[in-house]
Amino acid sequence: MAKNFPSREENYAQWYNDIVIKADLAENSAVRGCMVIKPYGYAIWEKIQSTLDKMFKDTGHENAYFPIFIPKSFFSKEASHVEGFAKECAVVTHYRLKTSADGKSIEVDEDAKLEEEYIVRPTSETIIWDTYRKWIQSYRDLPVLINQWANVVRWEMRTRLFLRTTEFLWQEGHTAHATEEEAIEETEKILNIYATFAEEWMGVPVLQGIKSPNERFAGAVETYCIEALMQDGKALQCGTSHFLGQNFAKAFDVKFLSKENKLEHVWATSWGVSTRLMGALIMAHSDDHGLVLPPKLAPIQVVIVPIYRKIEQLEQISEVALNIKKALENKGISVKYDDRDTFKPGWKFSEYEFKGVPVRLAIGPRDLENKTVEVARRDTLEKEILQLADIDSKVEHLLEQIQKKLYHRALSFRENNTHVVDTWDEFKDIIENKGGFVLAHWDGSTETEEKIKDETKATIRTIPLNEKESEGKCIYTGKPSKQRVVFAKAY
Amino acid sequence: MAKNFPSREENYAQWYNDIVIKADLAENSAVRGCMVIKPYGYAIWEKIQSTLDKMFKDTGHENAYFPIFIPKSFFSKEASHVEGFAKECAVVTHYRLKTSADGKSIEVDEDAKLEEEYIVRPTSETIIWDTYRKWIQSYRDLPVLINQWANVVRWEMRTRLFLRTTEFLWQEGHTAHATEEEAIEETEKILNIYATFAEEWMGVPVLQGIKSPNERFAGAVETYCIEALMQDGKALQCGTSHFLGQNFAKAFDVKFLSKENKLEHVWATSWGVSTRLMGALIMAHSDDHGLVLPPKLAPIQVVIVPIYRKIEQLEQISEVALNIKKALENKGISVKYDDRDTFKPGWKFSEYEFKGVPVRLAIGPRDLENKTVEVARRDTLEKEILQLADIDSKVEHLLEQIQKKLYHRALSFRENNTHVVDTWDEFKDIIENKGGFVLAHWDGSTETEEKIKDETKATIRTIPLNEKESEGKCIYTGKPSKQRVVFAKAY
Repeated sequence: MAKNFPSREENYAQWYNDIVIKADLAENSAVRGCMVIKPYGYAIWEKIQSTLDKMFKDTGHENAYFPIFIPKSFFSKEASHVEGFAKECAVVTHYRLKTSADGKSIEVDEDAKLEEEYIVRPTSETIIWDTYRKWIQSYRDLPVLINQWANVVRWEMRTRLFLRTTEFLWQEGHTAHATEEEAIEETEKILNIYATFAEEWMGVPVLQGIKSPNERFAGAVETYCIEALMQDGKALQCGTSHFLGQNFAKAFDVKFLSKENKLEHVWATSWGVSTRLMGALIMAHSDDHGLVLPPKLAPIQVVIVPIYRKIEQLEQISEVALNIKKALENKGISVKYDDRDTFKPGWKFSEYEFKGVPVRLAIGPRDLENKTVEVARRDTLEKEILQLADIDSKVEHLLEQIQKKLYHRALSFRENNTHVVDTWDEFKDIIENKGGFVLAHWDGSTETEEKIKDETKATIRTIPLNEKESEGKCIYTGKPSKQRVVFAKAY
Repeated sequence: MAKNFPSREENYAQWYNDIVIKADLAENSAVRGCMVIKPYGYAIWEKIQSTLDKMFKDTGHENAYFPIFIPKSFFSKEASHVEGFAKECAVVTHYRLKTSADGKSIEVDEDAKLEEEYIVRPTSETIIWDTYRKWIQSYRDLPVLINQWANVVRWEMRTRLFLRTTEFLWQEGHTAHATEEEAIEETEKILNIYATFAEEWMGVPVLQGIKSPNERFAGAVETYCIEALMQDGKALQCGTSHFLGQNFAKAFDVKFLSKENKLEHVWATSWGVSTRLMGALIMAHSDDHGLVLPPKLAPIQVVIVPIYRKIEQLEQISEVALNIKKALENKGISVKYDDRDTFKPGWKFSEYEFKGVPVRLAIGPRDLENKTVEVARRDTLEKEILQLADIDSKVEHLLEQIQKKLYHRALSFRENNTHVVDTWDEFKDIIENKGGFVLAHWDGSTETEEKIKDETKATIRTIPLNEKESEGKCIYTGKPSKQRVVFAKAY
């Protein structure tokens, strides 16, 4: 299985791609830039979905569904929004095919041309705010707290499985509020949910902050984000939460009668995470042996492999294995007992290792005699022989340990690859040769940000929230700065 | 809430539409034929989804995700498939917009024309079988049992909320098998799942059978279906399960090496249910007071409304209400306690009645004194005063009763509206004046089926499975027939 699999050192990009393909997570399709998410990959996405869905519902949000198509004219209504998305839109122009004149192929029926073209949604602010106009009249109708699980399309020129694909799956929250304060509070509440999910479920430590104006969402007043550091020293944006001010309410004329009986524009937020999280999850923990998954998101948390020569041995082992399986399942742990006789134990070991199953139990004839089981953990690749008694509690405890370990390993990595830098030469050197997060002063201008990007490819990933202000001088221009910001090369 | 709401008798179509709109289930959008599914409607769909998803997984199926776009050329590969879908396809021809020359609007960028157009999937057989070719080499790779939850687009000319919309949500299963028998077994297994779900969860009795060649899925060898009868005497197809033979395997060249070391084409099935089920659910049970929902699919199963004048009374009532809520929730029952002071009890009563909440509890000062609660059931509109003791068990039992009652009421309706008919005059009379299912002999020819349709608008809804053969003469031609089939006008 892991043959011809390069190490991270040898070829990081290939290493990532091989994990995605060979661990059966996803693959490219016949449609340019669109992926097929395979069952094992999709099972991880389902765990991400169900966890986040519960977090959204626990904070008062409801799911709904809006059309995949957006009339072209809606797009132009918010000026910066159209500028941000117009260049990467799939456009539906016709609604019928017909057989060609020679009868040999099918072609687009020119008689079925749409009067107004539809855009396949790259995000749904416009169609949703066009709908909210009908739903919101009074302060009694607020807040509207809605989330949608959907597919979206952005015509990307360079795609990479999960990280950047033409079609991707995501959730997009769209909320409407009576006051600016409440909308900002919502934006921050969601950022916290995203950060909690990334750290406690994915085991990926993230920086929380806001984006510079240059990196803001098209149509937002302020974009909040969570940023993670990958093992190649590049940053990955894992989620964004936008305070939209009254921009979309004004563009779509959504007003409400306030408690004070005044007609006012509604305040808005939008926020989303996508299948890109799968990319972060894979890159954050995996190693040169393949995928490593945090137990909380692993479709199979424990695999049990029988080791036997004779069929009578298998029967005895199966009895023990199925008892363990049942005991673990009673604790809510997902277990696969792989007693297929078409594959040898060694093959199975590397298969599950490559696929990142957190814990592997192996049971052989000697284990039967000794009432033991061999326990192997994927994160450290350590093995030990444990007594069968209370094996369910031991495994449960081990899964918790692995979950924590992965987070702390990623956190150490980030700490070791975060550099506080005060000179331009050092900045360039670290960005070029070491990578990682670079904390440096910046004068706050888009011009400087762009020059730094042109010279080093590094961008401002985030302006940290709740940091103590520390005066300093811009790394590039020497102009005064009130706070360090986080630079990195990014996915 | 229920003002200007017509009875079924007065205007059945308007009655249906008003329930969908006024019970906040869905509404039309700015995009032709596409609906917005509102939170209350979507919550029902989520229950449908999670129940079916579990049933699929319990029978060995896994979820995956395939691209929304299908290259035009894929479409032509299976001849009858393209014929079935070509006339109702949304076609993507361009991938970029640009600002118009006068700078005032945006337009499609003609420089960004696709070499080959993409179709927005109306169903995914083609893209999936193109993928399976890479996945399947040997009998060891079979069966492939995959399901996808997705949106699809069919450019319908006449649309009705949930029943027929340009975009709809659905699940589509696509399985691959080594033998014909196994594929047919799968087709039937899924039909059984659909029937069980319709009857036990939705409370909608369904006929199981196969479609006549004329009504078969484009590309199928045999289409199995479940058909339900609505209150206006029209049939509604609720789900289909297709045995595809080797049609798609041949079109996409998917072969496997059998156990006998022979290269053979793979056998296939596909099957789906959609948001159309919402239409069936609404029409099957609702009455002239609004929506009626079966408890198993109701987002809110029990609502508790406090009745009070003074705020101290509310406090006392709330204490009791919250205890009941907790006790019911411990039994897995979803409960809403509506203590809003912005609406009066009477308003709330009609609101929840219209929205089909199965059980309503009302608690007033006298109930506090007597340790009672008023219990109202939505299906029969009956009310009674019950002692508070064991109220959780009583309500749990009542919900079960309501679930059964709805099924049996719908079953009686179907029985009363199923007619065994032997003469053409009687056939025409019943189809035109009574509606319902008509069991009649048919000579088996498409020609006859079409003539009957032309003259009466009735189609063959299904050829029942497992019926005893009973010889007879075709209602239309008098030619011999071996079995009665089910005719009806249909949605």
